[in-house]
Amino acid sequence: MNPNIRYSRSEKVYLPGQIHPDLRVAMRRVEQVPTTTIDADGNKHITPNPPVYVYDTSGPYSDPEAHIDLKKGLPRLREPWILGRGDVVRLPQVSSEYGRMRRDDPSLDHLRFEHIALPLRAVDGRRCTQMHYAKKGIITPEMEYVAIRENMNCRELGIDTHITPEFVRQELAAGRALLPANINHPEAEPMIIGRNFLVKINTNIGNSATTSGIEEEVEKALWSCKWGGDTLMDLSTGDNIHETREWIIRNCPVPVGTVPIYQALEKVGGKVEDLSWELYRDTLIEQCEQGVDYFTIHAGIRRHNVHLADRRLCGIVSRGGSIMSKWCLIHDRESFLYEHFDDICDLLSHYDTAISLGDGLRPGCIQDANDEAQFAELDTMGELVTRAWEHDVQAFIEGPGHVPMHKIRENMERQILKCHEAPFYTLGPIVTDIAPGYDHITSAIGAAQIGWLGTAMLCYVTPKEHLALPDKEDVRTGVVTYKIAAHAADLAKGHPGAQVRDNALSKARYEFRWKDQFDLSLDSERAMQYFHAGKHLDGEYCTMCGPNFCAMRLSRDIKRNNL
Amino acid sequence: MNPNIRYSRSEKVYLPGQIHPDLRVAMRRVEQVPTTTIDADGNKHITPNPPVYVYDTSGPYSDPEAHIDLKKGLPRLREPWILGRGDVVRLPQVSSEYGRMRRDDPSLDHLRFEHIALPLRAVDGRRCTQMHYAKKGIITPEMEYVAIRENMNCRELGIDTHITPEFVRQELAAGRALLPANINHPEAEPMIIGRNFLVKINTNIGNSATTSGIEEEVEKALWSCKWGGDTLMDLSTGDNIHETREWIIRNCPVPVGTVPIYQALEKVGGKVEDLSWELYRDTLIEQCEQGVDYFTIHAGIRRHNVHLADRRLCGIVSRGGSIMSKWCLIHDRESFLYEHFDDICDLLSHYDTAISLGDGLRPGCIQDANDEAQFAELDTMGELVTRAWEHDVQAFIEGPGHVPMHKIRENMERQILKCHEAPFYTLGPIVTDIAPGYDHITSAIGAAQIGWLGTAMLCYVTPKEHLALPDKEDVRTGVVTYKIAAHAADLAKGHPGAQVRDNALSKARYEFRWKDQFDLSLDSERAMQYFHAGKHLDGEYCTMCGPNFCAMRLSRDIKRNNL
Repeated sequence: MNPNIRYSRSEKVYLPGQIHPDLRVAMRRVEQVPTTTIDADGNKHITPNPPVYVYDTSGPYSDPEAHIDLKKGLPRLREPWILGRGDVVRLPQVSSEYGRMRRDDPSLDHLRFEHIALPLRAVDGRRCTQMHYAKKGIITPEMEYVAIRENMNCRELGIDTHITPEFVRQELAAGRALLPANINHPEAEPMIIGRNFLVKINTNIGNSATTSGIEEEVEKALWSCKWGGDTLMDLSTGDNIHETREWIIRNCPVPVGTVPIYQALEKVGGKVEDLSWELYRDTLIEQCEQGVDYFTIHAGIRRHNVHLADRRLCGIVSRGGSIMSKWCLIHDRESFLYEHFDDICDLLSHYDTAISLGDGLRPGCIQDANDEAQFAELDTMGELVTRAWEHDVQAFIEGPGHVPMHKIRENMERQILKCHEAPFYTLGPIVTDIAPGYDHITSAIGAAQIGWLGTAMLCYVTPKEHLALPDKEDVRTGVVTYKIAAHAADLAKGHPGAQVRDNALSKARYEFRWKDQFDLSLDSERAMQYFHAGKHLDGEYCTMCGPNFCAMRLSRDIKRNNL
Repeated sequence: MNPNIRYSRSEKVYLPGQIHPDLRVAMRRVEQVPTTTIDADGNKHITPNPPVYVYDTSGPYSDPEAHIDLKKGLPRLREPWILGRGDVVRLPQVSSEYGRMRRDDPSLDHLRFEHIALPLRAVDGRRCTQMHYAKKGIITPEMEYVAIRENMNCRELGIDTHITPEFVRQELAAGRALLPANINHPEAEPMIIGRNFLVKINTNIGNSATTSGIEEEVEKALWSCKWGGDTLMDLSTGDNIHETREWIIRNCPVPVGTVPIYQALEKVGGKVEDLSWELYRDTLIEQCEQGVDYFTIHAGIRRHNVHLADRRLCGIVSRGGSIMSKWCLIHDRESFLYEHFDDICDLLSHYDTAISLGDGLRPGCIQDANDEAQFAELDTMGELVTRAWEHDVQAFIEGPGHVPMHKIRENMERQILKCHEAPFYTLGPIVTDIAPGYDHITSAIGAAQIGWLGTAMLCYVTPKEHLALPDKEDVRTGVVTYKIAAHAADLAKGHPGAQVRDNALSKARYEFRWKDQFDLSLDSERAMQYFHAGKHLDGEYCTMCGPNFCAMRLSRDIKRNNL
């Protein structure tokens, strides 16, 4: 596998900070060719077109200066900042029992990532979360980094922006945004999730029983970053989950999330009844020390609410939700996730692992949308998020699922109200059930709308949703589709500078600068491939209309000839 | 080419009328297998699942009883109704000069459709349009046909519906809906376009210079009908437009639209300045007598408004718009389409060809959305549509184009207001410019929203938009994507019975009745193909989650075991 990522006619650039001048905020700069016009007297005029800055999730992989060695992992960008704060210690060994067992098993030697650093942890009595610093009034390098990153093209083009490092700090302190940044994942570039920032997208990868090895998963992770995934969830449920995760995190330039209950269930051989708090707690520690940036935790499932789903057409469709519901019913007691929620928060505050409150009772079809089961869980999540914040743990709320368009707004408004403006992170929503094989599209329709209304991060859906595990091509389609939904939402919200890329691409289109049009596209490779599939004699039209019927050509004729 | 269309486990059924008992309203009925459950005592229970009726655009092609011969064309379903009204005459020969020239040219013999009937025309002084009958209080067989067609599953499931034959008549009389039904296209099954009905989609086919022959275009037409295209526009701009159109119309079970200015321009060798009213008029007659059900006419372009587009980033991006603008500027006069609009209406009222007022100044990029040029043209279209109605000519209004989400609502509200509730027919809108290669998706996001807000018909966009002419696979993707957008809008609008199919599919999904799930899908072939791409041991999960992590399986376990 060649891990290098190259974008056509793009340069990797690094912008410095002002509060933290040593910052190197990575962006992609797309160069454009100049516009050539010929006036009425036949004179040629050449007008340059400025470069366009593009939000870049590809990390060092797209930097030709970087020396990438997947066996060594990425440079530890954030390590000096983390250590510089003086509130963490390096542990003498991993704290998780299971982690030590895997470490000491010689049969795993051939699978193991070689360069594992010993984990960091906050000093006893201290909290090392970005929310903690924000509440203290501290603007960390991470905060300034994201402020610069969110403002692409603004400085160059003089566009006003509300996003300053201080604004970032305030949003984090209020819980309206989170900056997932486990101290044991210093390789990740800082990014922010909140409704007053660019809408982000998450991609899911991970093996399942019988499918996919480590190399394939790392390849999928890089692939996701190449196309624009802002965070990455490793949802592995197959073999060697611990080792797979280590390889992914060490090589991943974006925050990594997991659903720890999946691994816990694998540890008890798939027997839901054998899950316990102790086992789960050890899994959290194991993963916090590997560097997982956020955990999906289905603590919103309450014993007395489970049967609300009985009335549904499709019952419970969340994996974690169905596991925890079954556990509650078998043991006839409250879930250990709910009962130990404060313990979980206390633990996570020592690593800055954020909590994504999983929507275990999300609707799985149009008929079940916005029902009592779903909203009862949302109320519980609202209670839990404030408890997370009391521990300075960053948190956000997961959302549906399957929702018809006219019921989307209620989801967003209720979430803001009941969850005290904590960021919303939705799967889709899918707006009709009748198109398996096209659910990236059914869900992008809902995702764009809920993103516009205020959802901070959209979880991608691939064409294989409901049918099979996605392959690489599905991941690409899913990511690009969700970049479209997120960007459409940014335009509708009026994010500062969001329209710069649209305008540049449209100007290139109108001037038949095809290469610029491709290079500014979300998927330049596909655009170019489709264009070249047609037959054309010169560059001033495409086969869609042919030369005589090209409206842009006619329209330019009018201008050129001063009609 | 095998013209037969077969859908898995589906039966073609025909429902009778009440006012017109001889009606045979075609639908597709999808059979389902029963649900098998085993109770706590181990007893098996079998519960049948009712068949689901699906809106069917495939015409006789999906009827195994029908004998299809593309050389003879489809049965002339509406002919007895048309002749029975006693207001039309069969002409002794085609009236168009150009049509006679093509007829008499022996070099075209090998291309010519053999079974051309002589054209019908309304008796002098009579109008044979559905709007005319509606205003007179007459419920035609066409009107009852669409009333039954719109109410799939309602009668069987006892769902209330507002759509009665009388309601259809009222909507047509008010101009809020149209029923495109040229008297010379009796092969088409009646369908209705209006915001109080199911949202429809149009597909574009047609050759361009150097690409595609007649057989290929007919094949694309059938293909579009197979996947669900409600109307079909033949936008051919290449060779043998006249003959290609004849083959398409004679074999097309859905209404066919064209943009006559395209053929007119071909007739003058692509020289815009040589276009004239006489030439255009002859083209209208030629096409009315072939059976075109609606014409896009860019009569909203006014001489004094053309320069409003100068301020734009992308100028004029409508082909018809750019042609007419250039003509106005070259001749420095008002367009002949505008000046002769009453003549056009008078002509069309003799054939019941509807007018789709083309949006020649639609925005071609996000930056140009909702600008002065666009809205000035909308005002003109509002004036023209009332003039069409004075002639009892059915009419609708075309809309953008490229519009960011937050500007969509204004488009819809203004259109309703300025165009007196005439049906809106939009292209997309595309909600961001940055994703060439994925514009079926960027536009479906906008289409679903504007459909929900009231757009009556959505013009599909394929993945090749802006890049090349679509091939068959692109047509399929475009049609299915737009069926999704239209159906999502129907759900959000609460169209009677729209959710029946979603619920049936979701129930099948929850019960692992995979075949039912596929057969109820918009594209069962693709869904099945994706499912079978995964590896699974039995039918009760898919490779997305694997057996232990299938939420639906866990959720059903809970129910089964009475936990």
